[in-house]
Amino acid sequence: MTVTVKALFFDVFGTLVDFRTSIAREAKAILEPQGFALDWLAFADAWRGQYQGSLEEVRSGRIGFCKLDVLHRRSLDRLLPRFGAEKLGEADRVDLNLAWHRLDAWPDVAPGMKRLKTRYWLAPLSNGNISLQVDLARRNGFPWDAILGAEIAGDYKPKPRVYLAAAEAFDLAPADCMLVAAHTSDLKAAAALGLRTAHVARPNEHGPGKGETAPGLPVDFAAASLEDLAAQLGT
Amino acid sequence: MTVTVKALFFDVFGTLVDFRTSIAREAKAILEPQGFALDWLAFADAWRGQYQGSLEEVRSGRIGFCKLDVLHRRSLDRLLPRFGAEKLGEADRVDLNLAWHRLDAWPDVAPGMKRLKTRYWLAPLSNGNISLQVDLARRNGFPWDAILGAEIAGDYKPKPRVYLAAAEAFDLAPADCMLVAAHTSDLKAAAALGLRTAHVARPNEHGPGKGETAPGLPVDFAAASLEDLAAQLGT
Repeated sequence: MTVTVKALFFDVFGTLVDFRTSIAREAKAILEPQGFALDWLAFADAWRGQYQGSLEEVRSGRIGFCKLDVLHRRSLDRLLPRFGAEKLGEADRVDLNLAWHRLDAWPDVAPGMKRLKTRYWLAPLSNGNISLQVDLARRNGFPWDAILGAEIAGDYKPKPRVYLAAAEAFDLAPADCMLVAAHTSDLKAAAALGLRTAHVARPNEHGPGKGETAPGLPVDFAAASLEDLAAQLGT
Repeated sequence: MTVTVKALFFDVFGTLVDFRTSIAREAKAILEPQGFALDWLAFADAWRGQYQGSLEEVRSGRIGFCKLDVLHRRSLDRLLPRFGAEKLGEADRVDLNLAWHRLDAWPDVAPGMKRLKTRYWLAPLSNGNISLQVDLARRNGFPWDAILGAEIAGDYKPKPRVYLAAAEAFDLAPADCMLVAAHTSDLKAAAALGLRTAHVARPNEHGPGKGETAPGLPVDFAAASLEDLAAQLGT
């Protein structure tokens, strides 16, 4: 099928980067030398497990908008005692919190984006803050045209404002934008606002075989990777 | 001298791009085929001449924040009758207004930025809106890490919020950021907030010999070009 959009917006955590094994690796690198022995993947899962609840604090208005880095830190402080690591010092907590700035991309992302960049404006439409996105982009070679998402909208997905603020920043109608994501819930929110949708399968996002292999709603494109999406879009 | 900053913020109009001859060229390309014969450079000067007054409408709070594209359009509509071009149609006005998205960079900018990118985070700290910056970046090869400036701050330079919002977006103290600009007034506002400063001479910004050849206040660096600045910073 043909769609003519000008901009591609990307979900980042899970869709572009493998946060689970990256967080496990970073946690181990910081904690193990200090004698902590955690189940590193379980720790990564538990940290991410706090994610939606922490976003909901902002989305509901119970707390004002703050960067995702701040929410990650609050979750970390809550989590460390549960893993017997309550004695971790402040400097290490700061460093560990920045593990979310050191996530590795799935291998198809950089080559796929390079092709997509030739025809489309590219921006993250993520709940991650601007500085986090810059670190991820520099680490993984994401060629963003601009950093959009939660921080410029002052709210968190799937609140409509976040998607609409991204389109407005690019002077585009929602129908001229496509969200690329590995999560049906994100695509559903975007589609309801008139954005086009592309699903990318990330079957191992939450561990082997634990991720969406196909979209749970009708989408404009369903792709196995960003390179597959680039090919389907003729780039 | 040595300064250790993490981010370089750039003024854009005049500092990176030659708006005067670019706007004259674009105006001529659109208006001349329709029989209009203006003094193209005078038209460019007059349009830019409306700039500070239009920003002041927002800075003073008389009108709410809107993108620079909107302010440029209001100035254009006010200006056309003065140049005998009040009959210009809507589609051409839209196109002409986008001339500000089609400005050419001074020749030292792309090579200088490429060197600076190896060590510093780079972002525009401009009054131009995000979509305008993306167009200029794609046209001229500006390798931005993020688009900062007026649109993310919701106000216009030299209001303090614009400089501080840029530093905050990068999680940096003002002292870890340096503003690169061809205008003493801009550098003065940044320095007052604790940012470091670099002046770039643009002696022909407003016509031959009509531009700042040296800073009108003490700065951390005074450069003849972005390549000169890159060399002074050891990149």
